[in-house]
Parts: sequence; structure tokens; C-alpha cells
Amino acid sequence: MTRFALTIEYDGRPFMGWQRQDHGPSVQAALERAALEVTGETVTVHAAGRTDAGVHARGMVAHLDIAKPITAFRLSEALNARLRPDPVAVLAAREVPDDWHARFSCVARHYRYRIVVRRAPLTWQQGLAWRLTTPLDRPAMAAGAERLVGRHDFTTFRSAHCQADSPLRTLDRLDVVPTAEGVDVYASARSFLHHQVRSMVGCLALVGQGRWSPDDMGAALAARDRAALGLNAPPDGLYFLSADYPAD
Amino acid sequence: MTRFALTIEYDGRPFMGWQRQDHGPSVQAALERAALEVTGETVTVHAAGRTDAGVHARGMVAHLDIAKPITAFRLSEALNARLRPDPVAVLAAREVPDDWHARFSCVARHYRYRIVVRRAPLTWQQGLAWRLTTPLDRPAMAAGAERLVGRHDFTTFRSAHCQADSPLRTLDRLDVVPTAEGVDVYASARSFLHHQVRSMVGCLALVGQGRWSPDDMGAALAARDRAALGLNAPPDGLYFLSADYPAD
Repeated sequence: MTRFALTIEYDGRPFMGWQRQDHGPSVQAALERAALEVTGETVTVHAAGRTDAGVHARGMVAHLDIAKPITAFRLSEALNARLRPDPVAVLAAREVPDDWHARFSCVARHYRYRIVVRRAPLTWQQGLAWRLTTPLDRPAMAAGAERLVGRHDFTTFRSAHCQADSPLRTLDRLDVVPTAEGVDVYASARSFLHHQVRSMVGCLALVGQGRWSPDDMGAALAARDRAALGLNAPPDGLYFLSADYPAD
Repeated sequence: MTRFALTIEYDGRPFMGWQRQDHGPSVQAALERAALEVTGETVTVHAAGRTDAGVHARGMVAHLDIAKPITAFRLSEALNARLRPDPVAVLAAREVPDDWHARFSCVARHYRYRIVVRRAPLTWQQGLAWRLTTPLDRPAMAAGAERLVGRHDFTTFRSAHCQADSPLRTLDRLDVVPTAEGVDVYASARSFLHHQVRSMVGCLALVGQGRWSPDDMGAALAARDRAALGLNAPPDGLYFLSADYPAD
């Protein structure tokens, strides 16, 4: 058996999310079906992050074990040929040690959330960004984001369905970066709680629109209560960007 | 009657092109249908450029005449509400003089052509960029582009269906700009021949891949013969960016 790490891009719009589901298409099932067609082997593909329905990835990292002799390059080419027309593409593949694990070896995860500010509906960005129709106060958003960076109990920003043992997480980065069309929010941590990035971005939007002050963000965090959440942003704008591993 | 100028964004993928057609959807028909629903008036929408099937616009300029009293802001909001779910959005509207014409008053047109260089298929950019799988020599492309700037007979770069009286055009700008994923080609002129931008970009790609030299580009131009064209780029990567008018 050879273990391969894959770097994967996908458009989350047609999928129920990363994880295999009985009731609809998933990115994981698309990759496992392609792997079966390429190798004749029934494999499980493990990812660094199990993204929700409608969430995208520019550089998801995943691994799978293959018995058939094949090079990393041929594997990526063959998977891409079988993935069509699903909007999932293997950008890179490499051999990794047998004890390397896309999820458990991962030491940092990086997300981007794209907000477009305009009155007009989106066209080709429909489902690929969150449209807000009122101007955003970016410095206020940055001040609000500052309250969340560091090690905290993120219960307020955690889905009721979150299965993590602890609500404690260390948020290494939460940057609000201006773009030509709005703002991009960059979030980095060793790991995130379920819905954490979308919940933080939803509240940052309230701060940007002047409906919350940066202090309200601090108060929401301190409340450690899901009921204190202002707004959960839709999946549309969220992209899993990349994952870091010790050897990298 | 009040004449309104509209700035329009659209995703060209589902359309047969800008121009109204008997046999399929067009951007013009979508706008004229929305205007009829908003005003009860049968109008003709005139555009600065009649883009082909699959070509996009970030800032197409068009005009229409409305008898019903309505402000520019209300018109744009109402059109956007009626355009759904078509991927066409009115970004801005303003009143213009009765003799102002989106096509005939236009003094410059600006296009961008997006090329992504990678082995992997595109995901959310499918139909929104031209994917090339081999590296591009950008300086060579820039040298090739330089041969086309200025006033020339562009017969080589003109569709057989082009209806312009003269093949003479003045190309003001043809810039090859590096991006994170490949190159963007920016083209500006008072007006273009049919397929001119796509034909120029197709040949620039040949230069970038080393299949043509910059001198071959000059020779193709000098040939003034459609048979000398190397390659016509697909519509996918082409965006009508903006149009200039004397008053602007």
C-alpha cells in the first residue's frame, strides 16, 4: 500500500458537503468513486477539514491508500479524468509516509471568507461570495476581529451540532483585508469548531454595518452562549485555502 | 421619453450572446423582457458591444428609452428584481441626453481575457477562463503583443462573419499582465473587429508556448489573410470590462 496526499480544489455548490452522505452528492464520494474507477480499489479518502454544504476549497488536503503501483502524477491525472464533470480537481499529489494523516497530522488550517458589497445581485459569483448591500466599516471589523484572536472558549461561535470535546480553540489569525469588491476575511487556527468561521464572519458583518460595536464582539465571546451569536454567515463565501503539516 | 444608460454585468455561459436571437436566450432579450415587466413598454436595449455566445461582461454599457416616470435608481432596482434568476445584473443606471447612444457615442472599449495555466481542470472557473496546460513565456507574449499595437489592417484577426466596412483598426493597448494563476490580457481600442480580441489572444498563446515567435505574430498581421491566423481563443476567458464616452 502507498499513501498519497492530494491537494484538491472544489466548487461546493452542487455538494452536500465534504463528507459521504446517503442522501446526496459529496466531494468525498466523488473522489472515492474516481479512485475506484482508476484502481479497482474501494478506498476511504480522509480530509484535513470536513466542509459543509456549499463551502468551497482551493487547497483541501486529503489522503488515500492505494495498492496498485502508480506514480503520484499518474494518479492525479487519472483522478481528474474520472472526476469530470464534477467540479472537483486534484491540483497536486505526492507520496507520504504510512503514518501521515491528512486530518490528524495537520497543524494549521487556513480559510478565506469572501464578502462582496453591492446593491446588484451577483452573476457568476452567485454562491461563491456573500453579498451585503450596505457599506462596511473595515477598521471597525478589524477591531472586532482583534477581540477573537488568541485562546478562548468559542462556545458562542460553535454550532449546536459541533462534536468537538472542548470549545477551547486558539485563533491565530482573523484578518479583514480590503478587496476591489468588498472584503476578504482570513482565518487561521490549528483547528476550528463546527461553523466557527461562518459565525465569526457573521458577527464581523454586524460590526461592519454598525449594528454591533467591537465591544459587542468581545461581549458575545465572553457570553460563551450560542444564543449570544449575532449572525451565522452563509456557506457561499467560505473557502478552505490550505493546511499545514510538520514536514512542510 | 427619458433615455437611461445602464452599466451591466453578466455571466455569458447560458446565453447565445448579447444580441436577441430566435433560437435561444440572449442578454438583450433578458433585459428587454425585464424592462417590459417593469414599465409595460416594449423597448430596444442598445449595447456598446455585441458580445458572442459565452463571452462575459463586468461593465457593459447599454441604453434604453422609457416613457413611464421613474428614477434611474428605481429603474435599476426594478430591473434587477425582474432579471432573476438570469445571471445579469444592472450595476448602475443614469439619465443621459436623448442623442447619447451606447454604441455610437462610445469612444473606447476595454476587454480582459483571462488565461489560467495548470494541468488540473477548472472547477468554479469552468467557462470563466481559458485553461492552458503548459507554461507561458510572458515576456515573449508581451513582445508579440507589441507588434499588434497601433493602426493596422487586422484582416488576419477578423472573423469571416465580420460585417465592418473596413479591417483597419487602431489598437491602443494589448498588455499581458501576470496573475497568481496565469496571465490576463488587456485590450483597448475605439472599436474591435468581430473575434479580434479572441484571435489576438489565441496567437499570443502560441507565442507564450513557444510555438510562434514574436516575429511570427508580425508576419501574421502583415499577411492580412484569415488563413494566417494561428488560433482563435475560446469565448470562456473574454470579459467586456468597460466603455468610455466623451462626457466621462
